[in-house]
Amino acid sequence: MQYKAEIHVTLKRTVNDPQGLAIRGGLHSLGYEGVEAVRAGKFIEVWLEADSAEEAERQAGEMSDQLLANPVIEDYTVAIGETLTQASPSGGGVTE
Amino acid sequence: MQYKAEIHVTLKRTVNDPQGLAIRGGLHSLGYEGVEAVRAGKFIEVWLEADSAEEAERQAGEMSDQLLANPVIEDYTVAIGETLTQASPSGGGVTE
Repeated sequence: MQYKAEIHVTLKRTVNDPQGLAIRGGLHSLGYEGVEAVRAGKFIEVWLEADSAEEAERQAGEMSDQLLANPVIEDYTVAIGETLTQASPSGGGVTE
Repeated sequence: MQYKAEIHVTLKRTVNDPQGLAIRGGLHSLGYEGVEAVRAGKFIEVWLEADSAEEAERQAGEMSDQLLANPVIEDYTVAIGETLTQASPSGGGVTE
């Protein structure tokens, strides 16, 4: 069965976020004075074959630990959904 | 009232995603042969003051159009939640 894992990778609260600060500065420059803080993170979608949703979630967690997140400075969350096989982009883009 | 906007910025389906392809290659190298496709996007959290959730959502959409997303190649979604003021990191990191 094919599953889609939605993985959010965010900097830990105690880690400074220069990208977020830059975005906040840009938003202030554009006139959005109500913006108090910005944190920038990654959103990674992984389509994978697995025997069960639990197995897909276990694998996605392992992938996050090993490659997608830096556990020293980042946290991650994994959410699993079932997909139709047709819903997967083939290899990251239609041009491939 | 303070709101938190969670903004997902993803490449349009028709746009090639070299970062996603690189991640997929890395996952295959690590032995995750079940991975069929990967798409990499951005996850941006914005804490902002607004009069209502509708106003916060409108502003977050505008910010996405103007700064956070490139509408030529990227899509975005905005989700709004209410926050306690204390929940906001001050300016993107505790060191600031």
